[in-house]
Amino acid sequence: MEAFDNLTVILVEPWEPGNIGAAARAMRNMGLSHLSLVNPREPYSDACRMMAVGAYPIVESAAIHPTFRAAAAEQQILVGTTSARGRRPRVPVRTVREVAPELVALAATQKIGLVFGPERRGLDEDVLACCRYLVTVPTIPDFPVLNLAQSVLIVAYELFLVRDTPAADMPDLAVEEDRERLFAHFEQTLLRIGFLSSSNPGHIMRSLRRMFARSHLTRREIRILRGILSQMDWFTESGRHLDPQRVRKP
Amino acid sequence: MEAFDNLTVILVEPWEPGNIGAAARAMRNMGLSHLSLVNPREPYSDACRMMAVGAYPIVESAAIHPTFRAAAAEQQILVGTTSARGRRPRVPVRTVREVAPELVALAATQKIGLVFGPERRGLDEDVLACCRYLVTVPTIPDFPVLNLAQSVLIVAYELFLVRDTPAADMPDLAVEEDRERLFAHFEQTLLRIGFLSSSNPGHIMRSLRRMFARSHLTRREIRILRGILSQMDWFTESGRHLDPQRVRKP
Repeated sequence: MEAFDNLTVILVEPWEPGNIGAAARAMRNMGLSHLSLVNPREPYSDACRMMAVGAYPIVESAAIHPTFRAAAAEQQILVGTTSARGRRPRVPVRTVREVAPELVALAATQKIGLVFGPERRGLDEDVLACCRYLVTVPTIPDFPVLNLAQSVLIVAYELFLVRDTPAADMPDLAVEEDRERLFAHFEQTLLRIGFLSSSNPGHIMRSLRRMFARSHLTRREIRILRGILSQMDWFTESGRHLDPQRVRKP
Repeated sequence: MEAFDNLTVILVEPWEPGNIGAAARAMRNMGLSHLSLVNPREPYSDACRMMAVGAYPIVESAAIHPTFRAAAAEQQILVGTTSARGRRPRVPVRTVREVAPELVALAATQKIGLVFGPERRGLDEDVLACCRYLVTVPTIPDFPVLNLAQSVLIVAYELFLVRDTPAADMPDLAVEEDRERLFAHFEQTLLRIGFLSSSNPGHIMRSLRRMFARSHLTRREIRILRGILSQMDWFTESGRHLDPQRVRKP
């Protein structure tokens, strides 16, 4: 169960205190103990305590963050949960049963955030774009939306049942905070060179996020990419322009 | 999903109205629609409606029974859920994942009751003794007890994922009511012949229940067993005694 120490459940803007408690209870049933709450409406309450029963210490020791970025900063792999209805995700949505062994194998060496959205609307596109994995719990098509705590339970249960999966051979991945710095750098540079419009850089940036979310960037790869961006910055800042002939014939 | 029409979730003495609602929601997510409540503390309530969301019609159309026997009467196969901690069950306790395909295969032709106990204490021995299957949801050993609605969810989820299992070839099984009549007959006859003590017939009767719970009795087999009992009754009522010599040399 050592891999489970690398797993953190991140609840984004949970509304119902009872759901936080019920999620904590489900976590404890399945051997998870790290909870992170993003801007919860009411983190501590009687309703929460009642639903948590013996798992209330998980709530009491939960990290509380003002934003998703802050909660995700230390995670190396983000797993977004979605009901997958109606949207066309750019990352393929896989069932939690299918993905579970891969996640447990990765959790032996990587910090993984399991991200669950607010009760009424689920995770927004900006958060989903940061996720290396999108997972869903199969349900009947005409009543697809699980209760928040019940989603947490199913995900935790599927991971628990494959808890003995051997570790994956995987280099040390960058954490979300490094990726965020990369994207901030990208945005700044691409605005400067006129690739992005300052009025609406979001669309292209989200595509870049998705692209790199798929690719398990290591710390070293992020250094390389930021090196490239810095080099571009140096050119634009210093007013230098490449001589096209030199570029084409190195 | 036709098999799912033969599945009924039976909640025995549910205490928290919110759990009934959350169970109904989980049922609907996974394509189950028949709910039966045994002596619920509060079947209809705002808390229940709030947790059920769009699944409240399942609660409104639930059958409400004063006793487990009444709720089980029409079921051909009973499946008891248990945390399996500490007890030594006479029927082997299997995980819900392991049993799910068998149950879906049987549900094509048999009425199956999925029985869940009260929140605080689970199903009692008398109910467990009626169950052909005992199933459990694996959890970590030191925090084994799932919330009621979460147990319902996991069981429904596991069945849903194997919903396309082909039907089992199985004769028409007796319903619980027929088995109850058989056991009542057994008890009456065994008391009369002095095999059971009238002060405490429960222990032996529970063993008989467990023995026959394992054996998928058909309606015809029940008729045979009751025929044997009736024949014994006839002898004892009429004061007849078998001639031992005739019995030994037919």
